[in-house]
Amino acid sequence: MIPDREFIKTPEVPGPTKEEVRCIVMCKSKILKGDVVADIGCGTGGITVEFARKAKEVYSIDRNPDALEVTEKNLKKHGLLIKANLLEGDALEVMDEIPDLNVLMVGGSNGELSSIIKKGYKKLKDGGRIIVTSILLETRAEAVKTLQSLDMIPDVVEVSISKGKITKRGTMMIANNPITIISATKV
Amino acid sequence: MIPDREFIKTPEVPGPTKEEVRCIVMCKSKILKGDVVADIGCGTGGITVEFARKAKEVYSIDRNPDALEVTEKNLKKHGLLIKANLLEGDALEVMDEIPDLNVLMVGGSNGELSSIIKKGYKKLKDGGRIIVTSILLETRAEAVKTLQSLDMIPDVVEVSISKGKITKRGTMMIANNPITIISATKV
Amino acid sequence: MIPDREFIKTPEVPGPTKEEVRCIVMCKSKILKGDVVADIGCGTGGITVEFARKAKEVYSIDRNPDALEVTEKNLKKHGLLIKANLLEGDALEVMDEIPDLNVLMVGGSNGELSSIIKKGYKKLKDGGRIIVTSILLETRAEAVKTLQSLDMIPDVVEVSISKGKITKRGTMMIANNPITIISATKV
Amino acid sequence: MIPDREFIKTPEVPGPTKEEVRCIVMCKSKILKGDVVADIGCGTGGITVEFARKAKEVYSIDRNPDALEVTEKNLKKHGLLIKANLLEGDALEVMDEIPDLNVLMVGGSNGELSSIIKKGYKKLKDGGRIIVTSILLETRAEAVKTLQSLDMIPDVVEVSISKGKITKRGTMMIANNPITIISATKV
Ligand SMILES: Nc1ncnc2c1ncn2[C@@H]1O[C@H](CSCC[C@H](N)C(=O)O)[C@@H](O)[C@H]1O
Ligand SMILES: Nc1ncnc2c1ncn2[C@@H]1O[C@H](CSCC[C@H](N)C(=O)O)[C@@H](O)[C@H]1O
Ligand SMILES: Nc1ncnc2c1ncn2[C@@H]1O[C@H](CSCC[C@H](N)C(=O)O)[C@@H](O)[C@H]1O
Ligand SMILES: Nc1ncnc2c1ncn2[C@@H]1O[C@H](CSCC[C@H](N)C(=O)O)[C@@H](O)[C@H]1O
Repeated sequence: MIPDREFIKTPEVPGPTKEEVRCIVMCKSKILKGDVVADIGCGTGGITVEFARKAKEVYSIDRNPDALEVTEKNLKKHGLLIKANLLEGDALEVMDEIPDLNVLMVGGSNGELSSIIKKGYKKLKDGGRIIVTSILLETRAEAVKTLQSLDMIPDVVEVSISKGKITKRGTMMIANNPITIISATKV
Repeated sequence: MIPDREFIKTPEVPGPTKEEVRCIVMCKSKILKGDVVADIGCGTGGITVEFARKAKEVYSIDRNPDALEVTEKNLKKHGLLIKANLLEGDALEVMDEIPDLNVLMVGGSNGELSSIIKKGYKKLKDGGRIIVTSILLETRAEAVKTLQSLDMIPDVVEVSISKGKITKRGTMMIANNPITIISATKV
Repeated sequence: MIPDREFIKTPEVPGPTKEEVRCIVMCKSKILKGDVVADIGCGTGGITVEFARKAKEVYSIDRNPDALEVTEKNLKKHGLLIKANLLEGDALEVMDEIPDLNVLMVGGSNGELSSIIKKGYKKLKDGGRIIVTSILLETRAEAVKTLQSLDMIPDVVEVSISKGKITKRGTMMIANNPITIISATKV
Repeated sequence: MIPDREFIKTPEVPGPTKEEVRCIVMCKSKILKGDVVADIGCGTGGITVEFARKAKEVYSIDRNPDALEVTEKNLKKHGLLIKANLLEGDALEVMDEIPDLNVLMVGGSNGELSSIIKKGYKKLKDGGRIIVTSILLETRAEAVKTLQSLDMIPDVVEVSISKGKITKRGTMMIANNPITIISATKV
């Protein structure tokens, strides 16, 4: 994974998703070279850049223009802009414009998680994967319920990571906020 | 427990220990009304104030004069100054001046954890308890080893707490840094 | 707190709630000597017994007769049976029979969490507290939502505890399942 | 990653390392196609099999013959036996027989962690990585200290994973034991 500090940051845009969480997201998304993938709510581009390293093509959507700008910068910094399509707007509208997908990643949804998953499901090829990262108590249960309503079997992983900060006095353990990763495969 | 926000804070002094961790520390210290207790490295006074609510007398030690000042303010704020004795200096030196104890709490040690536990053990009455809170990888193992060298059986609890922050979008889970609480009883 | 091993266990009944979680539940419930409290879904009696040590009177409800039997045994074992009233049946029905409360604890609900909270709220005296312990992703969000619908401000604490098992090779860290404690005060 | 259930298990041998932890270990080990890697304490083969999928050659060491047997079975099951060299014996002795490494993974050490790291460091090529997984309080600090004594900068990640178990009543969160992953690069 790309270290967190290797991402350009801008104050108002959340992300990048922390290294270890990106790592698990990548494992769950099982991207192959020829895959077409989407990152809904691309934020700083943490996931988009990792996707771009593995997939054939990435569609990155965010309704915040600042997010797309910083995602673009991070794609450029890592020489991956050519792999990505940056689309500004609300996910539910912009998703109409993208092709069928091998992977749908939802990193932000703002009250529309259920509809985004359902819309994305229609675009998902057989064997395709949906991954949702959730920092809210409410979206965890919503993601599970929506995936189940689509006859998918959700894999639910709550990840709590603490990182050691090396100091003169010893290794201080600093917690990252817990993130729940919900994923499923279309069969 | 006293809510975290009810403590006066000062920038350079660590603490107060978070509410839920104070709660577990109080459970492990099993303080009775007549108990004499010590808080080594009292910092902001988070533990000292809780101890003062339950015990007969508290000895609060810190080598940082700012810590003693803010601990004093917090004791006053909660009407408990009368229960406490504030002692400035390095734990290993100042501990000579305190009486025998029912509870020894070590919340800061700065490389002297093993010696502080051993010195405190001598002051500990039969049935007395030692509690160590550790935020460093190194002091966790050191506390266990030292307690074992004194023929005590350490109870080791790693506590990871996340608190829900209610926002318009939902309940965002915010992690506190993990703390390990090591405790033991003198038999 | 009473150590976990001091509770009589029976295979089919869940509980007792682990020591450190009971400890935080007790802190959040702020029981005073004269309080009347209820434990909905008392299971093994882990919370009921702790409540009985502090409160004037405990109403313990469970629809599983085996749960009431083992709760009764644990109350007897700790000499607290006199403080408790054991009521068999579904919470929503049995709650009609209990008096007004200072504390409502919900440790089991089986799909009726929202209704139990709402019914309990009516029985709650001013200044009274509701505490919900949740091991399911779904009930966490439901508890928050229901408390908010009653104009209460939920305090949400996710607790992950690992306990050190002392072995010849060192201190092995063994995780307890995470529990979310949602609590609120009636103002 | 290979799902946990896709590994052949035998009662007395620990492992496989859980999917999400394997995933982070793989990220930290940054294996390239031509790499030669070692898995000290291969146990069930959880890490060995993942290494074999990515690296040119894996050296798997365990002093428990049962561990080597089940690791061999798992390599066969995944069609990767050809990539692996299975060596029985205590790590400190057997490590003499292996070539220079791009990655040294230590998943078991039994009191010899510091010596194993030091011996492995000598075999490590420039740019090579050391990864230690630790379930003991004591080995965490020992790994950090040893890596620092070799002028390496340890990356310390404590990983607490809970997995959702889908039940009729909802998604029950089940904790895996916390694991600390300590890694460093030879510069
Ligand atoms: N309905 C919606 N449509 C499009 N974007 C949305 C959205 N709801 C939230 N978002 C976007 O979702 C993002 C979540 S932050 C995502 C961080 C990202 N995974 C990283 O690693 O950098 C925000 O930038 C927000 O603007
Ligand atoms: N050897 C030593 N002697 C005395 N005080 C020490 C010490 N080593 C560290 N300390 C003190 O230990 C404190 C740790 S912070 C403690 C916070 C406190 N438990 C609270 O709840 O507010 C610091 O104030 C530091 O000055
Ligand atoms: N609707 C309902 N009415 C009454 N009891 C219920 C219920 N739904 C679940 N329960 C009970 O809730 C219990 C949850 S287990 C509770 C464990 C307990 N806190 C302890 O520390 O021992 C179970 O015994 C179950 O029978
Ligand atoms: N000094 C030593 N030399 C060789 N093997 C050792 C050792 N100390 C411990 N071990 C081995 O280390 C193993 C740890 S269990 C490792 C599990 C493995 N990572 C998996 O995913 O399957 C045990 O099988 C034990 O026999």
